Amino acid sequence: MACGVGVIGAGTVGGGVVKTLLSNHELIAQQTGVEVVLTHVADLNTECLNEFDLTGVTVGSDAKALIADPNVQVVCELIGGFEPAKTFILEALNAGKSVVTANKMLLAYHGPELCKAAVDNGVELRYEAAVAGGIPIIKALREGLSANHINVIYGILNGTCNYILSRMTYEGLEFEETLEQAVAMGFAETPPDLDIEGHDTAHKCQILTSLAYSTEIGLDEIPVEGITKITHADVAYAREMGYLIKLLAVIRAVDGEIEARVQPTLVPEDHLLAAVRNEFNAVYVQGDIADATLYYGRGAGRMPTASAVVADIVDIARRGDAPAPAPFVYGPRRSLRDTGHHEGRFYLRLTTGDCPGVLGSICTLLGNHGVSIASCIQKEEQIDNFVHLILMTHETIESALRSALAEIDALDFIGETTHVLRVL
Amino acid sequence: MACGVGVIGAGTVGGGVVKTLLSNHELIAQQTGVEVVLTHVADLNTECLNEFDLTGVTVGSDAKALIADPNVQVVCELIGGFEPAKTFILEALNAGKSVVTANKMLLAYHGPELCKAAVDNGVELRYEAAVAGGIPIIKALREGLSANHINVIYGILNGTCNYILSRMTYEGLEFEETLEQAVAMGFAETPPDLDIEGHDTAHKCQILTSLAYSTEIGLDEIPVEGITKITHADVAYAREMGYLIKLLAVIRAVDGEIEARVQPTLVPEDHLLAAVRNEFNAVYVQGDIADATLYYGRGAGRMPTASAVVADIVDIARRGDAPAPAPFVYGPRRSLRDTGHHEGRFYLRLTTGDCPGVLGSICTLLGNHGVSIASCIQKEEQIDNFVHLILMTHETIESALRSALAEIDALDFIGETTHVLRVL
Repeated sequence: MACGVGVIGAGTVGGGVVKTLLSNHELIAQQTGVEVVLTHVADLNTECLNEFDLTGVTVGSDAKALIADPNVQVVCELIGGFEPAKTFILEALNAGKSVVTANKMLLAYHGPELCKAAVDNGVELRYEAAVAGGIPIIKALREGLSANHINVIYGILNGTCNYILSRMTYEGLEFEETLEQAVAMGFAETPPDLDIEGHDTAHKCQILTSLAYSTEIGLDEIPVEGITKITHADVAYAREMGYLIKLLAVIRAVDGEIEARVQPTLVPEDHLLAAVRNEFNAVYVQGDIADATLYYGRGAGRMPTASAVVADIVDIARRGDAPAPAPFVYGPRRSLRDTGHHEGRFYLRLTTGDCPGVLGSICTLLGNHGVSIASCIQKEEQIDNFVHLILMTHETIESALRSALAEIDALDFIGETTHVLRVL
Repeated sequence: MACGVGVIGAGTVGGGVVKTLLSNHELIAQQTGVEVVLTHVADLNTECLNEFDLTGVTVGSDAKALIADPNVQVVCELIGGFEPAKTFILEALNAGKSVVTANKMLLAYHGPELCKAAVDNGVELRYEAAVAGGIPIIKALREGLSANHINVIYGILNGTCNYILSRMTYEGLEFEETLEQAVAMGFAETPPDLDIEGHDTAHKCQILTSLAYSTEIGLDEIPVEGITKITHADVAYAREMGYLIKLLAVIRAVDGEIEARVQPTLVPEDHLLAAVRNEFNAVYVQGDIADATLYYGRGAGRMPTASAVVADIVDIARRGDAPAPAPFVYGPRRSLRDTGHHEGRFYLRLTTGDCPGVLGSICTLLGNHGVSIASCIQKEEQIDNFVHLILMTHETIESALRSALAEIDALDFIGETTHVLRVL
């Protein structure tokens, strides 16, 4: 059995896929009995393919010819972005070819339309590489946990953010200097805004939410907060209280509604997610039958992403000419739960004048809104005549806390808007 | 599309599968468009099914009638043990039905024969539940990482052992009292020998090795050491040196050979495996393309195991009448690498008389065999006139260390055989 593969896009990931298909072709054939053969590569610039021996492979710039070639059974879209990626994917699906993509942004915006095209044509659209790179999390969620209602997903889904937060935690650095180093090392994207503002995580959050609840949800409905406001002081105070700060995608089923959001979160230091350091990703999934599971690995990078792309190709190839398996069905679009209803603990960093009655006024206002305090840190150190007052609340309703903070932040002795972080 | 399921075995796991198929039938149908219908349950004793509403399900004691029934497309073997489980599985496969089993012992001894019967009949034999319960590790290894040569697998695969070692670590208990409590709580099997002697881990190690290297290996070739000789002192000394003790299945490709063994191992405390506590399981897999990945969850228990069984059923059901995908191929049987060739660091607990020249004599003998010492702990506390001398070696060849220890353990002042543990 043989399966011809055409790769559109010869950049970082495309090159990694080409490399894997060439180097591990024998292994795949031995283990599965299927010859997965790279037949075509298309890109406007194929210079970075010079390192490979592509004898017998058609290399060119014509993606449409690649899609139309009868020797190509599986089309890999690895150029990224909206267009022409979307057009190529739809053309391939409409030509009766299964498609593998790593294009998380396209999927976050147009996933349902693309999935529908695959179903209509009786082929598959696979995108393991779109979330958490080398970690087979899509497969785990869709297939491995198919018996489960998903109660909760917590995802560390952006390696750049986790790298920055790890260095801030373990090396005592400030956000800005860590970011500069990450950019200088070519580690973060340039510009790094999609990463550090949380939007890359939101794209993946949207995909995981859609999969977990078999429903279409709007990317723009997901509340997103990045890590740019996290200071080394926050990291240090959190540690003092027994927590690490991680940028999490949090997805939950609550009272029949779906909650999905992206935000920096205090994770207890003995939670497995706290042990996920540097550029690694991890996804914690709790199902009603399997209970807690966690998946960990490299969420980005040429080869880990290629591993996911090629796994999708092999899955399709092992099927041969047989019809595609019953597709996962997406129900009608659903709205997300209002985050104000969220009930949990919160970390508050208040910047206050160091004068009598401050703590009393603050705690009274919080108490008026039903928010009670679990613990408190105040140091003598002053910054511009202000001090940090760190409060950890007991379980409280987010909207009540926000009302209290609106009043508190209006007080004379408050130096800047209170920084609020959720606690896992 | 509908798929009839017959469950043989109505015990703990069988009951969990029945419960899941009944409670989450709607979810599975919604998400996949496939009706997975429980049609039959067979066991000699079906009393524990009384809690379920089995209207429309044929319940009886005749497994052969279940297998023969044309309404049954997938047969689940959940009675465990060798016979009649093996006969039922072969009969079902030969009748052209796919089989799902959780029977790790049967697979460890007869896996290749059973897989061959599935291939010969063009059906599937799936066994996600046989290793690490609710963690979809078989799927991750076979499908999710299909592009990878597997360099290393480290598995915490027995919940009872990990629970005992965790309590010894965090509560300072001795092995015997922790085990007694685990048995009293119904947590450990009775008798617990298969668990604590490492054989249960060895069964899973054999299955993972066969999958990772697509080859048949002999269960009896895997060196197995349980946790019965681990004392609280070992746990405490290891922590002092920055390690936790975990019972690991270690599977590696070394110089074209395969290494597989089960033994208590010192894991650095900042390794993710060290954060796997209590009854949880985890499998760390390093591939040549994806690099490091880790999978974590509940390795046993009624519902986590049922989650894995039902996921296998859904995978088969989604295929409908289409032929089974290309099966994973097993190459000819291979021998395991001689463990004497192992190169690594070792923890040694020597029990010596507290007299002049002891440390000198021991280190000289170790040095004669090329073994050098990285660190050392000796406390003043005596036990029956002996003291513990704890040595951590630098990287060394295991056979050289064993030769040195044979000479050392013969010395007059050595009170008992030196306890050796490997270091990750």
